[in-house]
Amino acid sequence: MDIQNLRFASRFDGISGSAIREIFKLLAVPGMISFAGGNPAASALPDGTCAELAKELLLDKGKTLLQYGATEGYAPLRESLVPYLKDRFSFDCAQDEILPVTGSTQAMDLLCKALIDPGDKVVVENPTFLGNMQAIRLYQAQLLPVDSDGDGIRVDELEEVFKKEHPKMLYIIPTFQNPTGRTLSLERRKKIAALASQYGVVIAEDDPYRDLRYAGQELPSIKSFDTEGWVAFMGSFSKVISPGLRVGFLAADKALLRKCTIGKQSSDVHTANLNQAIVDAYLRRGLLAPHVKEICLSYAQQMNTMLGLLDKCGGVARYTTPQGGLFIFAELNEGMDAVKLLSKCVDSGVAYVPGTYFYPNGGHENTLRLNFSMCSVDQIRQGMEKLNRVFSENA
Amino acid sequence: MDIQNLRFASRFDGISGSAIREIFKLLAVPGMISFAGGNPAASALPDGTCAELAKELLLDKGKTLLQYGATEGYAPLRESLVPYLKDRFSFDCAQDEILPVTGSTQAMDLLCKALIDPGDKVVVENPTFLGNMQAIRLYQAQLLPVDSDGDGIRVDELEEVFKKEHPKMLYIIPTFQNPTGRTLSLERRKKIAALASQYGVVIAEDDPYRDLRYAGQELPSIKSFDTEGWVAFMGSFSKVISPGLRVGFLAADKALLRKCTIGKQSSDVHTANLNQAIVDAYLRRGLLAPHVKEICLSYAQQMNTMLGLLDKCGGVARYTTPQGGLFIFAELNEGMDAVKLLSKCVDSGVAYVPGTYFYPNGGHENTLRLNFSMCSVDQIRQGMEKLNRVFSENA
Repeated sequence: MDIQNLRFASRFDGISGSAIREIFKLLAVPGMISFAGGNPAASALPDGTCAELAKELLLDKGKTLLQYGATEGYAPLRESLVPYLKDRFSFDCAQDEILPVTGSTQAMDLLCKALIDPGDKVVVENPTFLGNMQAIRLYQAQLLPVDSDGDGIRVDELEEVFKKEHPKMLYIIPTFQNPTGRTLSLERRKKIAALASQYGVVIAEDDPYRDLRYAGQELPSIKSFDTEGWVAFMGSFSKVISPGLRVGFLAADKALLRKCTIGKQSSDVHTANLNQAIVDAYLRRGLLAPHVKEICLSYAQQMNTMLGLLDKCGGVARYTTPQGGLFIFAELNEGMDAVKLLSKCVDSGVAYVPGTYFYPNGGHENTLRLNFSMCSVDQIRQGMEKLNRVFSENA
Repeated sequence: MDIQNLRFASRFDGISGSAIREIFKLLAVPGMISFAGGNPAASALPDGTCAELAKELLLDKGKTLLQYGATEGYAPLRESLVPYLKDRFSFDCAQDEILPVTGSTQAMDLLCKALIDPGDKVVVENPTFLGNMQAIRLYQAQLLPVDSDGDGIRVDELEEVFKKEHPKMLYIIPTFQNPTGRTLSLERRKKIAALASQYGVVIAEDDPYRDLRYAGQELPSIKSFDTEGWVAFMGSFSKVISPGLRVGFLAADKALLRKCTIGKQSSDVHTANLNQAIVDAYLRRGLLAPHVKEICLSYAQQMNTMLGLLDKCGGVARYTTPQGGLFIFAELNEGMDAVKLLSKCVDSGVAYVPGTYFYPNGGHENTLRLNFSMCSVDQIRQGMEKLNRVFSENA
């Protein structure tokens, strides 16, 4: 029988792969100034420190690190995460309420595996992170988008949806959101924790950008206001140490975490031990805070340069002014189409991601996401000049 | 609302976590002689070489290795895998027919993700590897066990099941099978490749033990007889380099591999780059073959010691005599119960895994799986003496 006759699982109906990852492949042109990615700057990746740590850890504990590990995670890392979570995210949790995972993408996958049957409803911000939208869709959930404003997701609308639609889960990025850069207000954080308990909805709180703050005051996590265990917290070391190491974590109610752990047995048995041990060394030896401080100095300059130039950029109607993170979200004049303009921009040597991809139901063709972490201040100036030229000509 | 009210996804109905992994937790008693695991010997884990490689690779290519990588895998590793697959598994395939994964467990997960809808049928050997049985069950497939004999799975019975039941997939470990240690004959390998095409069934060929051969002649993979792309081949470096690094690969038809790649985007984005680069260095620099040769010398002695003592062990009716791998499968006298006897054995300081767990429908309580890789020849002698005592008393 011809392999063309192979029928794939129905979860792939309508799934075509991440549009963003396809865009990235088009950017391999030398000299391209890319505002499209969401990667850390090369200068932010601590290759020297990781080289020394990897060697030291393998010489010291190689027989343990190269052997099978527990699905539950590398014990020293779980130990280190307890005070880290308290310090950075303001919540208490025990070691057995923490599961190290293979990047926080796996945390999302495991939460869906544990909770979602086909047809279940999952609320997401409108717009939201493309990658996790695809993760949720692969579990055949129905996405319910709720609009956000300058203070993050609109909690009045959210309560209406919780009441009427009985969703299983809310997926939310409360700090320096992807793609908008917006931060959820303190009041709304408290309200969402309360709504979760009131309506019995799991909150999947995704907070990978929090440490990249360049202005303003830190806010406690939604989970810090969670009294009954409805908030599952996903963290990542991709933005502050290295995405290539693939280490994140999930902190959640024990019964929920147990299902995620069983799910992880069949996903990848456990997260690579060496990678967990490198992250553990960063936490245990106090290497993370000074490294983050250094990164932030440079990212702040890059963001402020881009914000300053956006103000004078032709065709741009408005844009967000984040206090941190990696992204600015811009809106072009009514009638301009960021998808169509992308190819003109790429032709002139600059790229971004059209905002429409971040909206579960599409539309919003006049929006775009701009990343500033991967370009020098000089490149940002050049790239913004190119954008200004193309947008002005088409405004 | 109390979190106790949380309803989990129906894929977890009847799933309670790997029984084996629970047994392992009971073995942390000092002095316990464990024939229960399936881990490489500590002496087989190349900590010194990995320490040097990790440092060198991170100093040389750290900015690439610590950055996000492609879901499709680390390009140099895909390049190295082409001649490796040809040499070791006797099949040709292109780089874009290979996907590096986070341990071959992930290959199984992605194949199920790509192919299995709830209620689909998956044929497995009876008995088979517990871990992947759970992976398949989490996709709510119906398991169809087909008996094996000394030459591996019975192909007459298999054809009947293909004809009558129209299964989606066959999961098979053709070489030094887990738990039996048996190897599928050449004739049956050819036949299974032919049946796959004839009936349109995907063969998930899992071959992690092949390089651990201590006697007899190597056989080509089932995939080497595959003319139309129905065989998906899963490989692992866990048994020959390190399980803790979590690197394996999937080689499959392009359209199927594309679905697996999209599935992987949402599972963990990509396999950690450093870990892929270490495996690549092993292949590229010719480090693997001499390392495997060294491991096999020791494992052969361990296996032969155990086989010799099994011959004189009370209560043992018969056992397999593998030509390699990590496991021997034994059958006790009719009426003896390896589950009940396990606690007596553990009390006297020796452990194994009851065979019943490897049968999809249970039963076969008088069987057990014995691993010899993690014990020295001396420990094997001591452990077999303990088994002999308990089994003789209860025969």
